[in-house]
Amino acid sequence: RDVPEDTLNTQDTTPVVKKPWYETIQLRGYAQLRYNGLFETNPDLQCAQCDRSWGGDGGFSFRRIRMIFFGQIHERVYMYIQPDFASGGSNFAQIRDAYFDLGLDKKQEFRLRIGQSKVPFGFENLQSSQNRIPLDRNDGLNSAVANERDIGVMFYYAPTEIRKRFSRLVSSGLKGSGDYGMFGLGLYNGQTANAPEKNKSFHLVSRASYPWELPSGQIIETSFQAYTGKFVINRNPQTDFDQTEFAEHRYGPSLIIYPQPFGLQAEFNWGRGPEFNPETNSVEDAPLRGGYVMATYMLKSNTDIFIPFTRYHYYKGGKKHELDATRHRVNELEIGVEWQPHRTFELVAMYTISDRTFENSLNPDNRQKGSLLRLQAQVNF
Amino acid sequence: RDVPEDTLNTQDTTPVVKKPWYETIQLRGYAQLRYNGLFETNPDLQCAQCDRSWGGDGGFSFRRIRMIFFGQIHERVYMYIQPDFASGGSNFAQIRDAYFDLGLDKKQEFRLRIGQSKVPFGFENLQSSQNRIPLDRNDGLNSAVANERDIGVMFYYAPTEIRKRFSRLVSSGLKGSGDYGMFGLGLYNGQTANAPEKNKSFHLVSRASYPWELPSGQIIETSFQAYTGKFVINRNPQTDFDQTEFAEHRYGPSLIIYPQPFGLQAEFNWGRGPEFNPETNSVEDAPLRGGYVMATYMLKSNTDIFIPFTRYHYYKGGKKHELDATRHRVNELEIGVEWQPHRTFELVAMYTISDRTFENSLNPDNRQKGSLLRLQAQVNF
Amino acid sequence: RDVPEDTLNTQDTTPVVKKPWYETIQLRGYAQLRYNGLFETNPDLQCAQCDRSWGGDGGFSFRRIRMIFFGQIHERVYMYIQPDFASGGSNFAQIRDAYFDLGLDKKQEFRLRIGQSKVPFGFENLQSSQNRIPLDRNDGLNSAVANERDIGVMFYYAPTEIRKRFSRLVSSGLKGSGDYGMFGLGLYNGQTANAPEKNKSFHLVSRASYPWELPSGQIIETSFQAYTGKFVINRNPQTDFDQTEFAEHRYGPSLIIYPQPFGLQAEFNWGRGPEFNPETNSVEDAPLRGGYVMATYMLKSNTDIFIPFTRYHYYKGGKKHELDATRHRVNELEIGVEWQPHRTFELVAMYTISDRTFENSLNPDNRQKGSLLRLQAQVNF
Repeated sequence: RDVPEDTLNTQDTTPVVKKPWYETIQLRGYAQLRYNGLFETNPDLQCAQCDRSWGGDGGFSFRRIRMIFFGQIHERVYMYIQPDFASGGSNFAQIRDAYFDLGLDKKQEFRLRIGQSKVPFGFENLQSSQNRIPLDRNDGLNSAVANERDIGVMFYYAPTEIRKRFSRLVSSGLKGSGDYGMFGLGLYNGQTANAPEKNKSFHLVSRASYPWELPSGQIIETSFQAYTGKFVINRNPQTDFDQTEFAEHRYGPSLIIYPQPFGLQAEFNWGRGPEFNPETNSVEDAPLRGGYVMATYMLKSNTDIFIPFTRYHYYKGGKKHELDATRHRVNELEIGVEWQPHRTFELVAMYTISDRTFENSLNPDNRQKGSLLRLQAQVNF
Repeated sequence: RDVPEDTLNTQDTTPVVKKPWYETIQLRGYAQLRYNGLFETNPDLQCAQCDRSWGGDGGFSFRRIRMIFFGQIHERVYMYIQPDFASGGSNFAQIRDAYFDLGLDKKQEFRLRIGQSKVPFGFENLQSSQNRIPLDRNDGLNSAVANERDIGVMFYYAPTEIRKRFSRLVSSGLKGSGDYGMFGLGLYNGQTANAPEKNKSFHLVSRASYPWELPSGQIIETSFQAYTGKFVINRNPQTDFDQTEFAEHRYGPSLIIYPQPFGLQAEFNWGRGPEFNPETNSVEDAPLRGGYVMATYMLKSNTDIFIPFTRYHYYKGGKKHELDATRHRVNELEIGVEWQPHRTFELVAMYTISDRTFENSLNPDNRQKGSLLRLQAQVNF
Repeated sequence: RDVPEDTLNTQDTTPVVKKPWYETIQLRGYAQLRYNGLFETNPDLQCAQCDRSWGGDGGFSFRRIRMIFFGQIHERVYMYIQPDFASGGSNFAQIRDAYFDLGLDKKQEFRLRIGQSKVPFGFENLQSSQNRIPLDRNDGLNSAVANERDIGVMFYYAPTEIRKRFSRLVSSGLKGSGDYGMFGLGLYNGQTANAPEKNKSFHLVSRASYPWELPSGQIIETSFQAYTGKFVINRNPQTDFDQTEFAEHRYGPSLIIYPQPFGLQAEFNWGRGPEFNPETNSVEDAPLRGGYVMATYMLKSNTDIFIPFTRYHYYKGGKKHELDATRHRVNELEIGVEWQPHRTFELVAMYTISDRTFENSLNPDNRQKGSLLRLQAQVNF
């Protein structure tokens, strides 16, 4: 057992033949710099979950500064620790992922993932923001798991051939989700990432996904996912309330046609969960539903890549992780283009036409419509 | 003098023969994921200093996510910077260690350690949590220095032969404390790690330790340590109080018989310090005492290592770093086993039978008894 | 396009010939440990912007723990991400720099710098604290940009020959500012680093600088810089106030004679900005001015370097980033020496004689005079 030192070396040391640390652990990352202030018609049109610098006083802002320390630290153990350096409102470092994959068989087709990691619910939720084309995730499925992550134990299975296909869908630039298995099953706290548990009951999630490869080389991925659990909401302390714990569940399908060159992506989910009712000023168990459809086209010109896209998304339901399970009605259309002059730099311009209602006890009558141009520069390293 | 750049390289650069950064600075770390909710008989049985996720609402939690940047950055200077990424209640990154060893002689037998580092008081306090077998440190000695660390200047001396022995006690898997010298002497703020100083007086600590190597190869380490200083406590602001600064001192011995294969570990300390008195609702200077005894057995079976252990620990005194120098009476028995299938993964299951009194002005009558099973998965990288 | 994985490798992987990550991204850093308590004549003499551990209860403290991840990640893109691990009052990790240089031409003489980086206003502001001789920056120019940084887009131009000269002024140990171009022009939020924008108007900055190389090898750098914008101050909420947004502008020259062996450094700036008026208890638009002159001497003796120095600095104006745009009157004389036994360790002892007035609505009559000895150990890695 080789446990490293914590002080000055003594004069001579026995040479140990061991893989150096920098071949085991690797570092990569990306950063996203945004400007949301162009052609803005309504500064009260905002989306806290999407991007806090949208609306309000604007200016430049970092949406993400990610550094990922990862590597196969043992033939059976893979590590992935990803702090974000644009967190806490003032660019503090906070964990996003901190998980470890334990291979259960020699080929690692069966894996146990322990720690804080993405909850396998929705393709766009699982896809890295480094690869997603629109600036923010759709409200419909992202409202299921704020920050996409939670702490717990996940089980994933995929045969080697499918694992390679998932891997190729990312490395080829086709913007896959990464490898969350053909089948996944997980147990997690349910209060979302970096938040302490507030009840003693776990959430349970499951997902099946298959990337069909057609003879033409085209790949179509179809998935179905569902979760259930009990969530404890934050209520406005000035309000009379008794119930803070609510049962919730969601389920829905995903369809991804990878952009070779024309891509189509659609997801939807239905379910129930807590939602603020402005008429009674109380939070109630209510149905919810939402999703999106997105069309993309991959245009390669010399070394440049251009990806024009359009996405329409919709959500009707509460956001459990916001105050009083804020009531939402969202209809949003985006039209934009991503330009990649080379692999380290990407620029996205996206025109957003939006109609958002977000109501809680502090703001019980709040429907905001408007449009704006949003810009993002992303650097990959 | 070679000071690196802060921008794009100019077209050509003079080649400099220099050790690359990754051979000078190294990275390693570990993470601890816990679940404290099994067979819990009393959710009010808690220990804030041990593990905030013990008791209450439970769930999975990270106790530590540590990344250690370290290395011999000069023939006379060693660096050790260890942030924790599971801090601040929401997995923010916060410094644990940030120290630099300055070798005073060529053989580096005499060292000055500057910065934030462990206060040399107690073997278990000095031993890394990566190596400790029970999930948390004993209250008896850990109440001397919350988070084990402070900022200041420490002097350590050990001859090369003893330095190698200290080093071997860690690298061999025998779970030594690391090299804090045969003799240590330190001057530090005294308000514990990451807290600003609150008075102008330093704390003074000293420790002597010797690892006796028997002809059989067995190693027995005996130590004696003591510190003194003045500490400023936090009082409940709703309370009438005048005194917040208290003199404190502690002293005590350690005895470590390393597990080859049977191990025994015992420490105790006596002293005085501030303690809340629930009868008068005031904080008073009071005697304190506490310690533990632990038995372990190292079982090797093929590549697996199993270490069954039991520890009894006891504390009677105040915890100066908690509100009102919270009064504590602790009696705790732990029985468990650590399993190491390989060097990167460890699993500990530990059954805890506990009787804890922790009383301050918010909670002046609070004795909690109970038992629970605690689980920890640790990944070393 | 090569996007890395996020999980266990599948059994076999295609070998890709690519520069390993550790040759692209590099890590370096430094840490500053201070003790400000010797011969202190007035504990109420403080400077929040300089060093929060000056005055008050003192003790050891970390002023900076910096880790810099940097590198040429593409032939046209340079990355520089610098978190500080001594931030937020309790040694949390917070971003200082996070910028990316995009080379506009093949020789990278024209660069666009996007992200959070130093605002090119003042030589001492641009010079790294790793290289600065006095412990803190002068109030006169540093009050222009607290933490020296902001988020935005900067343009820099310098011909290759001058870029090399700027580079050499740092690498040779002459303590240059780094390469901020012969000409710089920038657009930034204006609320200073890690703070969200509070109005919709940008700040604009420009700077010209030229390092004249004399036939003797002596280098004299002359600069002129100016900025303008609108700043939103923090007012004491207990006060009656209506105006929080103020126009501000500053301009001024710099003169640097590099220490070969005698060095002289002088900067001054004039302008207008918000300032608290204790007589009316309101914040008003007011003139401001301030600067410094510093003399140094570089003494090399074997491998040791000693740099005795003295600096006088002066400021009369408000500090916009402090409560109520705190009114300042600063006269300070410092005499000290920096000792570098080798490139990884530096010790500075500095005697400070100071007369500081800092007044806002909480403390409308506050002039503090006194002197003290300040000590700093710096480790470079």
